[in-house]
Amino acid sequence: MIYQRVALIGLGLIASSMAHAMRAGGLAGEIVGHAKSAETRDVALKLFCDRVTETAAEAVQGADLVVLAVPVGAMAEIAAEIAPHLKPGAVVTDVGSVKQAVVDAVAPHLGPGVHFIPGHPLAGTEYSGPQSGFATLFQNRWWLLTPLPDTNAVEIARLRRFLEAMGANVDEMDVARHDLVLAVVSHTPHLIAYTMVGVADHMRRVSAQEVIKYSASGFRDFTRIAASDPTMWRDVFLTNKEAVLDILGRFAEELFSLQRAIRMGDGEQLHAYFTRTREIRRGIIEAGQDTAAPDFGRAARPKSEG
Amino acid sequence: MIYQRVALIGLGLIASSMAHAMRAGGLAGEIVGHAKSAETRDVALKLFCDRVTETAAEAVQGADLVVLAVPVGAMAEIAAEIAPHLKPGAVVTDVGSVKQAVVDAVAPHLGPGVHFIPGHPLAGTEYSGPQSGFATLFQNRWWLLTPLPDTNAVEIARLRRFLEAMGANVDEMDVARHDLVLAVVSHTPHLIAYTMVGVADHMRRVSAQEVIKYSASGFRDFTRIAASDPTMWRDVFLTNKEAVLDILGRFAEELFSLQRAIRMGDGEQLHAYFTRTREIRRGIIEAGQDTAAPDFGRAARPKSEG
Repeated sequence: MIYQRVALIGLGLIASSMAHAMRAGGLAGEIVGHAKSAETRDVALKLFCDRVTETAAEAVQGADLVVLAVPVGAMAEIAAEIAPHLKPGAVVTDVGSVKQAVVDAVAPHLGPGVHFIPGHPLAGTEYSGPQSGFATLFQNRWWLLTPLPDTNAVEIARLRRFLEAMGANVDEMDVARHDLVLAVVSHTPHLIAYTMVGVADHMRRVSAQEVIKYSASGFRDFTRIAASDPTMWRDVFLTNKEAVLDILGRFAEELFSLQRAIRMGDGEQLHAYFTRTREIRRGIIEAGQDTAAPDFGRAARPKSEG
Repeated sequence: MIYQRVALIGLGLIASSMAHAMRAGGLAGEIVGHAKSAETRDVALKLFCDRVTETAAEAVQGADLVVLAVPVGAMAEIAAEIAPHLKPGAVVTDVGSVKQAVVDAVAPHLGPGVHFIPGHPLAGTEYSGPQSGFATLFQNRWWLLTPLPDTNAVEIARLRRFLEAMGANVDEMDVARHDLVLAVVSHTPHLIAYTMVGVADHMRRVSAQEVIKYSASGFRDFTRIAASDPTMWRDVFLTNKEAVLDILGRFAEELFSLQRAIRMGDGEQLHAYFTRTREIRRGIIEAGQDTAAPDFGRAARPKSEG
């Protein structure tokens, strides 16, 4: 057992998966949960919480670890509500996809006796809600921590041990760098996937039927990315605005350059570009972040993996 | 056995997979292959061809079915070369990703005694070359035929039977419609994936190391799409120019509208958009074109599937 009492604020995919993983590994003495919706609380009590509470303030009382697992836009309000009820010495972490906005929203509310260690698990599925969690979601996934300069090293080490016990690989990085890296590897790709799916949706000359039927030829992978939780992603784009707009600007420049090459019939430019992008892919396979199996994302996937 | 002698012109992923599938199903009496490169011919002879020839003209002699499996840009030259050597009554098909350009390149060369039935298997992996093929590549994948109005119905039916025997689901559609549908579900998504990977490659402030390390958060699916054969994709964009530029224009409009919403902080517009795109995803799962397993494309994939 690493923490005696853990409070989960917000009971969606990430929090429910954490609870299942904690139970599987015997990592917490008691798991207390809070969600705004009574229905969600009922599901959580049945599936993975020892106790649920009607308010966040109640949930955090006596908790050694408090996990803020609500959309980034809701963090400030929750932090203000729970702050007076936190146990001295408690660790507060979060699972938001952007970090500067969470630090700005949460840190000002917390007293000096509380250890705030912002975090972000790079794990997810296209499903949301308390029934979508499973114990192995974090297995071999990165969990980034962005501790502030003056954070207690002993508590950082304890939180790392806890996350590693759930199967995650933990890395620490600077808040601003986190937001830029994620804008490149996650936020902008998601926006682009949403956009492409939106274009297909609007195409009146191509029926939705045909788009769906022949989706395996590339489009399907976009729809998987574009099916993630709308509220979470709205907040990501509103709160990591600067980095996302920067990367989007670069994306538009590159796209227009390729579009021009198509219009002008410049096959050399296209070929050189497509050859370069193969290299990054090779790097990912060599780094063990994907398999080299010649499958193009077609295979049926197990419910959870190692 | 459906065809006595089959000639494969071009011996990459698609042709080698067809050969493996023909052998597995006993669909052809003899498989003759031609590729420009002597090294490719050697591999093909060892792995899946009964005979290879130094020229395409030799390969098609006496063949009942001729499959043009070269990049779209090479079709016209090959058609001109083989036309005088085709057996009367032979069926010629192709596997190009665009159809109008192939019809324009091939049809004028073929005599009236030959049956030309353009085709396009919606199947592939990120690998190319004669060693990358496998017998089950076409299992449960669509194979689109775009026969011209005056094509012999008996020969279309025979080709369908042949493709279905390799595991494919065959659909017929109009040439122009094919090119538009594919621009939406395949060509434009590929260009966008290439672009996003190119942006990441150019990001000097984010090291390639970090992009690769944290790629699982969305970006990885783009790199898989963007690792396909550069020559094939160059030709796709050069030959389906009009439809791709049309869809790209729509894409840019949508993207700018979302970009503006981010800049202005319009959360409602973003949320509504992201909610709509979920619907298309549901349609794809309901149509059996993907599984609903909550995995986000993370699982190790089998080498080939059913």
